[in-house]
Amino acid sequence: MHGTVLYGAYDIRFEERPDPAIVEPTDAIIRLAATCVCGSDLWPYRGIQPIQGPTPMGHEYCGVVEEVGRAVTSVQRGQFVIGSFFASDNTCPHCRHGYQTSCQHAALVGGAQAPRLRVPLADGTLVATRDVPDADQIPNLLALSDVMGTGWFAADAANVKPGTTVAVVGDGAVGLLGVLSAKQMGAGRIIAMSRHESRQKLAREFGATDIVTERGEKGVERIKQMTNGVGADSVLECVGTQESMMQAIKSTRPGGYIGYVGVPHGVSLDGQQLFFSHVHLHGGPAPVRRYLPQLIDLVFAGKINPGKVFDLMLPLDRVADGYRAMDERRAIKTLLRP
Amino acid sequence: MHGTVLYGAYDIRFEERPDPAIVEPTDAIIRLAATCVCGSDLWPYRGIQPIQGPTPMGHEYCGVVEEVGRAVTSVQRGQFVIGSFFASDNTCPHCRHGYQTSCQHAALVGGAQAPRLRVPLADGTLVATRDVPDADQIPNLLALSDVMGTGWFAADAANVKPGTTVAVVGDGAVGLLGVLSAKQMGAGRIIAMSRHESRQKLAREFGATDIVTERGEKGVERIKQMTNGVGADSVLECVGTQESMMQAIKSTRPGGYIGYVGVPHGVSLDGQQLFFSHVHLHGGPAPVRRYLPQLIDLVFAGKINPGKVFDLMLPLDRVADGYRAMDERRAIKTLLRP
Repeated sequence: MHGTVLYGAYDIRFEERPDPAIVEPTDAIIRLAATCVCGSDLWPYRGIQPIQGPTPMGHEYCGVVEEVGRAVTSVQRGQFVIGSFFASDNTCPHCRHGYQTSCQHAALVGGAQAPRLRVPLADGTLVATRDVPDADQIPNLLALSDVMGTGWFAADAANVKPGTTVAVVGDGAVGLLGVLSAKQMGAGRIIAMSRHESRQKLAREFGATDIVTERGEKGVERIKQMTNGVGADSVLECVGTQESMMQAIKSTRPGGYIGYVGVPHGVSLDGQQLFFSHVHLHGGPAPVRRYLPQLIDLVFAGKINPGKVFDLMLPLDRVADGYRAMDERRAIKTLLRP
Repeated sequence: MHGTVLYGAYDIRFEERPDPAIVEPTDAIIRLAATCVCGSDLWPYRGIQPIQGPTPMGHEYCGVVEEVGRAVTSVQRGQFVIGSFFASDNTCPHCRHGYQTSCQHAALVGGAQAPRLRVPLADGTLVATRDVPDADQIPNLLALSDVMGTGWFAADAANVKPGTTVAVVGDGAVGLLGVLSAKQMGAGRIIAMSRHESRQKLAREFGATDIVTERGEKGVERIKQMTNGVGADSVLECVGTQESMMQAIKSTRPGGYIGYVGVPHGVSLDGQQLFFSHVHLHGGPAPVRRYLPQLIDLVFAGKINPGKVFDLMLPLDRVADGYRAMDERRAIKTLLRP
């Protein structure tokens, strides 16, 4: 088969790759219904995060099980499944606490920008839908593999509750789905921070009540003005830079909560500043697996349409165009059809 | 009257000071039953935290109200009161959320190592006991003014729940009262990290089930061993150094909670390390006022004896000896009798 490989900065190739096969008895092989490009793929794509030689890309996936190892019991050939971007056994102490992305036996899923994929720890990682979904549900279900679960974790980590005031830093796909998540959790006011018209529009569609276009200190000032000088109850940090993190911390009221899911790059927090901010801080790689059953139900019930973040759909062999469009911020998120 | 003034590193003087008087109509004047030296007083005492000229010292107090400003309504002359080390109006949005140490009108209390003290925002800051307490309750009530409330906040911020495993970093008075707080909150296992015999003994008395003498990476290793490689559910960070903070972060299980109350000095947190640790982080200057009514009840009910941390009792005019004993770690905490 052909698969996607990153060779260096801006050098994405779709080339011949070995067909995936069962390696461990706990593996499954999936034929992908769709895959996509993640915001986090852009870090190595842009050369900011170094790679060790040619790297198979992609970690978001859903599709039909083609083959399972002999130890797999919870999914079977022919089932439609969605899995987390991080494989977990779902039985270790960390998994039982709901932190499957810190699973003691965690394994990375890699090479998902391809027609077929090997998923380790299939029993702990994959969740089957009751039926094979209609084609128009595929983008919604694909989104659950990472980006929707990550936005949901951001809102959950930021303790969003009915009636509270929420600010979302970052208007990428995760930030936008953070808005959708906060709306689902009953937030009273949702302030999306964005300066891009198309993203502002989607933010409003997902439930944003206010848009703030300012960034940094000016963005903080606006949030303070809008909350009578108090600050937001919950702030979702969905970028991962020093500026976005400080914007989040300073926009939160004392005693408020920050859920941070943007992988920090070059971020350093001053202990004393954090101390006197009085915020709650929680985040990390989203334990998507924890939320999958609930989010699949919400999709099938028609309550959420996270697939709307895919504003560019390409055949898989045009994956390089998909990266380029996201890098240049012409697309929010690229879906790839094998 | 005479009061305590810090002139520079290790230079504590007990000298003539102006008698406190009502300045604002919201003030009260207290005649102190007792006061004490705080671990945080040692930062400027040791010259680590710079001072701007001679500085009146002390912020922990309890005693009888002698005079109130004309706007004060909730406490009156003759009542025995305890107040937080931080004055707050207890009505602003931050106070209503329980973060009185971030009160929008917060004022520092200073110069409490003296026979009499002016307390700003008396209505929001002071809590009266039903009766004037017996002399043997004074140390317990004095402890509520800061150190007990701070230990309680550490345990609360670290989400201590019945049956959970708690580790306490720091064996100063706050850490020891963190142990006591965790015990009150029903923790199943309380691991005190201490290498001083007298402090270990008090930790056990307060409810510690285990003592770990190792520090830093070795301390982390011990906590991991003791929890089957998982880490503690809750860690109380009661020191405020880079080493103690990292010890706390690495000792906590993914998804676990850190309550940090040691004022950070030179602490810097790497964003990516914190991200992948998956911990919850919350702390800051303890909103002691939030807990005062509950803690006063626990003292009068005989359920807690936080005054046991005072292992040195001196007349107020020997305050310099009190600092010295704490600096040299000969005393856990010094109580001063005016």
